[in-house]
Amino acid sequence: MAETTLTISVKTYSSWSLRGWLLARFAGLEFREVLVPPDDPAVRAEILLLSPSFLVPCLRHEGVTVWDTLAIGEYLNEIRPQAGLLPADLATRAHCRAVCGEMHSGFGAMRAALPMNLKGHFPGIKVWSRAQADIDRIAAIWTDCLTRYGGPYLFGAQRTMADAMYAPVVTRFITYGVQLDPPLMAFCRTILAMPELQEWIRAAREERDEINELDVDA
Amino acid sequence: MAETTLTISVKTYSSWSLRGWLLARFAGLEFREVLVPPDDPAVRAEILLLSPSFLVPCLRHEGVTVWDTLAIGEYLNEIRPQAGLLPADLATRAHCRAVCGEMHSGFGAMRAALPMNLKGHFPGIKVWSRAQADIDRIAAIWTDCLTRYGGPYLFGAQRTMADAMYAPVVTRFITYGVQLDPPLMAFCRTILAMPELQEWIRAAREERDEINELDVDA
Repeated sequence: MAETTLTISVKTYSSWSLRGWLLARFAGLEFREVLVPPDDPAVRAEILLLSPSFLVPCLRHEGVTVWDTLAIGEYLNEIRPQAGLLPADLATRAHCRAVCGEMHSGFGAMRAALPMNLKGHFPGIKVWSRAQADIDRIAAIWTDCLTRYGGPYLFGAQRTMADAMYAPVVTRFITYGVQLDPPLMAFCRTILAMPELQEWIRAAREERDEINELDVDA
Repeated sequence: MAETTLTISVKTYSSWSLRGWLLARFAGLEFREVLVPPDDPAVRAEILLLSPSFLVPCLRHEGVTVWDTLAIGEYLNEIRPQAGLLPADLATRAHCRAVCGEMHSGFGAMRAALPMNLKGHFPGIKVWSRAQADIDRIAAIWTDCLTRYGGPYLFGAQRTMADAMYAPVVTRFITYGVQLDPPLMAFCRTILAMPELQEWIRAAREERDEINELDVDA
């Protein structure tokens, strides 16, 4: 049996790597991390927000190679249905996939204005209007989910794909001091308190900071 | 029983509307089209490539509301499994979702440089390097799929979600005269010959051209 691996990149900055890694951990999968160096062109492209990469995250499991975060989530849901990555109810599952899809394809202005940076703390940053519109839409999604399903996670008592998709956004809101209503701050604390995310953040803070050499104005 | 509806926007320019509509047609769903006017701010945002919209496409079916193209595809696959929107084999299904995911979250430079325009024909347009990199990646995806699964569709004899996801790209390559290897041109002809796409293109050509009032430099 071939070893199960997950290819990821720099933990401090790669939000897509974090999403894929959280999904694999939520599913209870045993895997070895394969790290793509931060000077790899594909990683640079992702971190500079030019494009997602088909190199990270990438899961190799029992002869199957899956890239793209949502495809990884769907694959994990198929091989580990008991993990509940998607809600059991048809309509709720459709809702969960819809908000995951919004994160997957959208919020480009927020992603550009507030890049994930697990070593930084820049409260009070000036948020331009288009990024603020993204933040407002994310707040509306979270409020709707928490109200309809009762929290503490987006789709109720159990963590789903949606919590993995929005976890990097939670770290961004903390890093940049984005103001949120109390129920949304409580949700952020719930996500930040997840042991898996704490483990990732600790690993990020131990990374050498080679990424500083990137030309972040590109 | 509530009526099944699919909310879409202007057929000439809205590639996300086309994808959602093709998915619903591939699934054999009966639905009524609900048209969002082209001056709606959310539609303008999508067409100006600023962001996908959570308004279009949006499917309402038996009390379930699903937006986001991939979420609609997954929902349709659940309620109409016999339509084969996803391949039957686990590894092939993961591959299909991966390439759908790449289209869903990526190729921003190609989308900006070669916007879908079913009324236009602009062969010989100068393609800048980042858009060319997107085109090259799409060509690599198509070549890989057609080689591995034997065509004529991306995942073999049956149309899947991936063909709906890449159909607007086929129209762009024709509109802008993008040069492709013969097997990829044959794939483009296969997609263009689908009766559903022909029906959509005819409807697009009958649309009033209100969209010209959009400030496409925004």
